[in-house]
Amino acid sequence: MDPATTSTGLRDGAFGNARALSCRECGHEVELGPHYACPECFGPLEVAYDFPTVTREEIAAGPRNIWRYKALLPVPGDIEESPNTEPGFTRLLRADNLAAELGLTKLWVKDDSTNPTNSFKDRVVACALSAARELHAKVFACPSTGNLANAVAAAGARAGIKTVVFIPSNLEKPKQVNSAVYTPNLVAVDGNYDDVNKLASEIAGEEDGWAFVNVNVRPFYAEGSKTLGYEIAEQLGWRLPDQIVIPVASGSQLTKVDKAFQELIKLGLVEDRPYKVFGAQATGCSPVSVAYKTGTDAIRPVKPDTIAKSLAIGNPADGIYVLDICRRTGGAVEDITDDEVREGILLLARTEGVFTETAGGTTVGVLKKLIETGQLDPDLETVVINTGMGLKTLDAVADQVGPAATIAPSYDAFRATGLA
Amino acid sequence: MDPATTSTGLRDGAFGNARALSCRECGHEVELGPHYACPECFGPLEVAYDFPTVTREEIAAGPRNIWRYKALLPVPGDIEESPNTEPGFTRLLRADNLAAELGLTKLWVKDDSTNPTNSFKDRVVACALSAARELHAKVFACPSTGNLANAVAAAGARAGIKTVVFIPSNLEKPKQVNSAVYTPNLVAVDGNYDDVNKLASEIAGEEDGWAFVNVNVRPFYAEGSKTLGYEIAEQLGWRLPDQIVIPVASGSQLTKVDKAFQELIKLGLVEDRPYKVFGAQATGCSPVSVAYKTGTDAIRPVKPDTIAKSLAIGNPADGIYVLDICRRTGGAVEDITDDEVREGILLLARTEGVFTETAGGTTVGVLKKLIETGQLDPDLETVVINTGMGLKTLDAVADQVGPAATIAPSYDAFRATGLA
Ligand SMILES: Cc1ncc(COP(=O)(O)O)c(C=O)c1O
Ligand SMILES: Cc1ncc(COP(=O)(O)O)c(C=O)c1O
Ligand SMILES: [Zn+2]
Ligand SMILES: [Zn+2]
Repeated sequence: MDPATTSTGLRDGAFGNARALSCRECGHEVELGPHYACPECFGPLEVAYDFPTVTREEIAAGPRNIWRYKALLPVPGDIEESPNTEPGFTRLLRADNLAAELGLTKLWVKDDSTNPTNSFKDRVVACALSAARELHAKVFACPSTGNLANAVAAAGARAGIKTVVFIPSNLEKPKQVNSAVYTPNLVAVDGNYDDVNKLASEIAGEEDGWAFVNVNVRPFYAEGSKTLGYEIAEQLGWRLPDQIVIPVASGSQLTKVDKAFQELIKLGLVEDRPYKVFGAQATGCSPVSVAYKTGTDAIRPVKPDTIAKSLAIGNPADGIYVLDICRRTGGAVEDITDDEVREGILLLARTEGVFTETAGGTTVGVLKKLIETGQLDPDLETVVINTGMGLKTLDAVADQVGPAATIAPSYDAFRATGLA
Repeated sequence: MDPATTSTGLRDGAFGNARALSCRECGHEVELGPHYACPECFGPLEVAYDFPTVTREEIAAGPRNIWRYKALLPVPGDIEESPNTEPGFTRLLRADNLAAELGLTKLWVKDDSTNPTNSFKDRVVACALSAARELHAKVFACPSTGNLANAVAAAGARAGIKTVVFIPSNLEKPKQVNSAVYTPNLVAVDGNYDDVNKLASEIAGEEDGWAFVNVNVRPFYAEGSKTLGYEIAEQLGWRLPDQIVIPVASGSQLTKVDKAFQELIKLGLVEDRPYKVFGAQATGCSPVSVAYKTGTDAIRPVKPDTIAKSLAIGNPADGIYVLDICRRTGGAVEDITDDEVREGILLLARTEGVFTETAGGTTVGVLKKLIETGQLDPDLETVVINTGMGLKTLDAVADQVGPAATIAPSYDAFRATGLA
């Protein structure tokens, strides 16, 4: 996006309590705008704030969506008035059946599959949309492994802004249709996600007025994932869990949930006590898990080969921060096979009535493995995040389940099934 | 279900403020239990209450799901403590884009596609589950056009009760898988929904301890749809809309939304003012619309032939009450073709970023037709209910939308698409 269109014409309070973009590596600060790399060291920029006092009561009085936390996000005070998908404030389910199955004492599932387009991506996209609007972008765009495309296309339709979304051409059909219904501008790219991502960066550099949610407005976008952390704390009664298991693709979500917990502590909204963060990957795309296990700081990019396509980012931008957080908090990063991903999907469905996609199967399966390998303490209170929805990756389990019987419409035929 | 197991062993307050089951036709009352037909006249039974005073503040202080209205439902006061899917309190979206497209002044979409299993059925099933639990049922079951099966299988899994769900064998694959992930006891029946329903009634009559949500605990089940009406009123700031458009299969939902509005008026929670109720059907299964148009009271059963399978009930149990309500309030019942259903799906997606299933396409398409035919006043505040989710009926639109282009991962290839 042309910086010239952005430094001018910014209205007061366009980014709420955000103060600047600050480099995660060297701390250098630049003004708020469509920037994502530090001009000094090329490190990633993130949003820095001057927070006022924020009370639990103010938050509780807000809307039943992520805007209840608007004081903690880079959005204007009147954000609710601009058309958006109103994501968030999803269920935090006490998961006693799954806990019993896994030998855990106290487990919660944060179920983000009930968001407007059925993944946590609606949160980040809502924040990116606000930034795009404030920066007067003409096009709202993204490269995506699928869920992000759904969220961008839907949010753009509702906001009345032109959307263009880029996906790998081998993407699951449900995720393709689920973007194409919202936008005529779905572009399939022959290549994997990392190829699509590279193309998006190129376009972002060449075209004026394009807001690529996870490229040039990425710092604003990424803040949306903090709301997962805020909600978990609020829904636990303003308290942090002891342990949390989070899926890792680029690593952004995990990093931001940790940031949210830190902010809540600093703002005095929750008690300051230790918590452990765990990252979940599929073995077929596990660059962060591999680095964790080999004890290095450097992440070696991989070519993804897994059914967990939404997690198939071979070169994760925030991987090193994931390593840092999981190590610092006493957590871990773990990975599981595609068969274990499928098992994780069915396990969650059969125990808690939640149908997750492959990303959630990965997270649940990794939770299981973490317990079995003694890396996660079964007696500590644990939260596992379900970030997506099973209907989007139906093929992962479609061959494994089905009718127990097909019968004629008669009582005798029913009796013969043995189900009575 | 064996009545003997139910009159005994009922705990105090098992059904909250519900007083009795009362006959819709003759007013005869029977005790609360697994009964659904009047012993005097065979009319349908519904739940009657002795409501205490209920305030807006009490409701607002409740959980962010249907249990905030527990005082108005046939459930015990501690309902939140029993594992359930925690449905409801879904988005009420101001739909300015769709309104502009249709020439309406003020339109809202009540979006029930973000419920736990992505349809409004989670509401009714949660109430049926409570009844099944209080009545000590051993099996939680249903005949279903798909969505109900998903909701029953999920709720049963979470509650740890055995589920058996019956579906027509030609049901959409996504809806089949979306039940089979939760339960091993999915039974496909060679026949249409009305055949499946008849079989279920037979089983309910023969087997002990089976709670068929929409058969022998139907009075409790049906009350769940009232929460749609309560939420709409609360989310409008404790106010009724002027007009509301509701899909009709058995007609239960429409009937209960009207009941909810009436209760809110009687309880003094909203102002008493007129509202018009409109019913939506697909032409391929439009027995209620046909009766409305021909001005009769009798509904002639049909053999359904429409892509709107979730609305394909040819012999609607509550059809006559739908006729009565739509006529009494000054509304109407209308139907549209399958092509118009598809158009409705895309219209809602492109204008508001909401991907609905065929039932929602029907409701939106009927809204359009009601305006075009002058039956609905474009200057009155209108609510349209989206009861389900597009990924479940993907085939309805899968051939109509798709990538605008498939390209190599290069900037030049992108430029050639003309999308810049
Ligand atoms: C369902 C789902 N879960 C988790 C993730 C991981 O997100 P992140 O890139 O923030 O690590 C993604 C990313 O696309 C996703 O689609
Ligand atoms: C998505 C959807 N909408 C609406 C309905 C209509 O419900 P009712 O039978 O209460 O008229 C159904 C019923 O199955 C449904 O699945
Ligand atoms: Zn720097
Ligand atoms: Zn009677």
